[in-house]
Amino acid sequence: MPVRMKDIAADLGISVVTISKVLRDHPDIGEETRQRVLQRVKELHYRPNVTARSLVTGRSYLIGLVVPDLLHPFFAEVAKSLARVIRTRGYSLIIASSEEDPELEEQEIEHMVARGPDGLVIAASTLSSAILQRLDEQQQAYVLIDRKFTGLSANFVGTDDIAVGDLATTHLINRGCKRIAHIRGRENSTGAKRLEGYKRALERGGLNFSDKYVILRETVDIESRLQGNFAMQRLLAMHPKPDGVFCYNDPMAIGAMEAILAAGLRIPKDIAIIGCGNLHYSDLLRVPLSSIDQQSALIGARAGKLMLSIVESKATPQPKSVLLEPHLVERASTARTSRQTAKE
Amino acid sequence: MPVRMKDIAADLGISVVTISKVLRDHPDIGEETRQRVLQRVKELHYRPNVTARSLVTGRSYLIGLVVPDLLHPFFAEVAKSLARVIRTRGYSLIIASSEEDPELEEQEIEHMVARGPDGLVIAASTLSSAILQRLDEQQQAYVLIDRKFTGLSANFVGTDDIAVGDLATTHLINRGCKRIAHIRGRENSTGAKRLEGYKRALERGGLNFSDKYVILRETVDIESRLQGNFAMQRLLAMHPKPDGVFCYNDPMAIGAMEAILAAGLRIPKDIAIIGCGNLHYSDLLRVPLSSIDQQSALIGARAGKLMLSIVESKATPQPKSVLLEPHLVERASTARTSRQTAKE
Repeated sequence: MPVRMKDIAADLGISVVTISKVLRDHPDIGEETRQRVLQRVKELHYRPNVTARSLVTGRSYLIGLVVPDLLHPFFAEVAKSLARVIRTRGYSLIIASSEEDPELEEQEIEHMVARGPDGLVIAASTLSSAILQRLDEQQQAYVLIDRKFTGLSANFVGTDDIAVGDLATTHLINRGCKRIAHIRGRENSTGAKRLEGYKRALERGGLNFSDKYVILRETVDIESRLQGNFAMQRLLAMHPKPDGVFCYNDPMAIGAMEAILAAGLRIPKDIAIIGCGNLHYSDLLRVPLSSIDQQSALIGARAGKLMLSIVESKATPQPKSVLLEPHLVERASTARTSRQTAKE
Repeated sequence: MPVRMKDIAADLGISVVTISKVLRDHPDIGEETRQRVLQRVKELHYRPNVTARSLVTGRSYLIGLVVPDLLHPFFAEVAKSLARVIRTRGYSLIIASSEEDPELEEQEIEHMVARGPDGLVIAASTLSSAILQRLDEQQQAYVLIDRKFTGLSANFVGTDDIAVGDLATTHLINRGCKRIAHIRGRENSTGAKRLEGYKRALERGGLNFSDKYVILRETVDIESRLQGNFAMQRLLAMHPKPDGVFCYNDPMAIGAMEAILAAGLRIPKDIAIIGCGNLHYSDLLRVPLSSIDQQSALIGARAGKLMLSIVESKATPQPKSVLLEPHLVERASTARTSRQTAKE
């Protein structure tokens, strides 16, 4: 039987109101009483009842997070920093993975909404904006992370994805690559904008864009390494082969490197590779991987702060968009001088 | 305003009871009615209300998971497979990280219990058994994963950790290592049993056990790579240096490899390395890492099934312990013939 506030009150011979005030840090209470209450609260392992608190505030103190895959380090890092921020105000994180499956993604969101969370943080993968419009109609607060929707005015925290594609591709051009391929993301904002940045950099660098050098696979966030490997095998079968590849994310880049090394080619001499995400271990790989850092921990933290400000404000605030600047991390997978010519 | 069951009933001109029966797959209802209801439920995006369902069943449909760190791929994999299993029966996962901090771990567990989850899944790191006894007194269902407590009869799903230490160490002995060090885990069951397995294997192999070859760092699950690097630096300063190291987990092993390579030594020729966890990318590292596979996905899935059976049974079932067999995955970091002699 958990200890209740009134048990502590009876035990100390003071009122429940006094104890409640101590726990809410109310200035009314003298220091001696405060210490006595806190001491007893600690000894008896008293936990303020979340249900009771919910009745008072009308909040569930639950924030839902929907991501494509928890095993993808980018989303794990977002989840970790998001949880850390919301915990400071007594909120818990419910997590669901959509596994890049449109039906599952919709189901998971509906299932979460049915729980009545104070807010949802969504990294959409296959989602249509109709579902988000429904959330708007139901006045369900939500923050999108990583993937944005055009034509929808929603709270958003993510990276400038055009800059991601531009930075990565420009870096390959600066390293002397002439035939730069792109293993791209899905047809959502992240995938489309990184592709756009890639095209912009090619144009600025005076290189031709060719459709056949852009490869799209069925999934990009789950089984990414395998998908990156398959995509690279297709690129290796082309004549001429690319001499540089910008991959949508690091796990896909790791798969692409596998395929290149398995074909007996050298990285970066024959083909230079750059990914995105700057994941752990990227620098300890067989060929340390150059990457675009998206500041994943910061995305989670900023989403958490934005969510708290929405949930705890009395009126509905205007939607806010937070765009973080990506930056280049150079490692061995692109470390070639611009004079080296790639072998065909 | 979300659609309610009675809106659908009014819309179709049938009773709420009929709709409820359709949704519970009750045999009373004719196929035509069933199809009409399901069709309308889909069109109107009706979601059975979790709160209403909770009132009937007395369950919250929340399962809490407390892990040291979500970013550690082992725990991310456990979380993913656990969520997948409980989702099939309409349960959601709340996640908290203890960050290997005793106070935070206790707080997070108390905070979760205050939410009234149907069950908790706990990967304890610094936890004392007193907290678990309190959960027992409060009749809070829980399943321990990965770390066990002696003298406590609790539900448990994990790996045979003595076998982990034995397998890893025996493998190093078979590869000709004579001075085998251990970068160990904390003073909990996982850390203690892997150490025990290491000692057993040394004894069976006729090698001396020496305290100075066993290194313990402040944390093992957070900042593991850095901690592994520091531990290895201490081992490298010894005379004679070890020629084989069994590391508590793969991230620590990766840090140890960094330190060895930075010192200009070769893996496995000078020092062979084996970790535990068989994490993603282990085979694409600069030196692909041998490891003991703990079947992390299976741990999550089995914990989920065990939790569902506890939560959904009428009586409190007898505590059950599920111990999975680890197995060896050999890669380049231990690939030397037993005849090679390590350089001092």
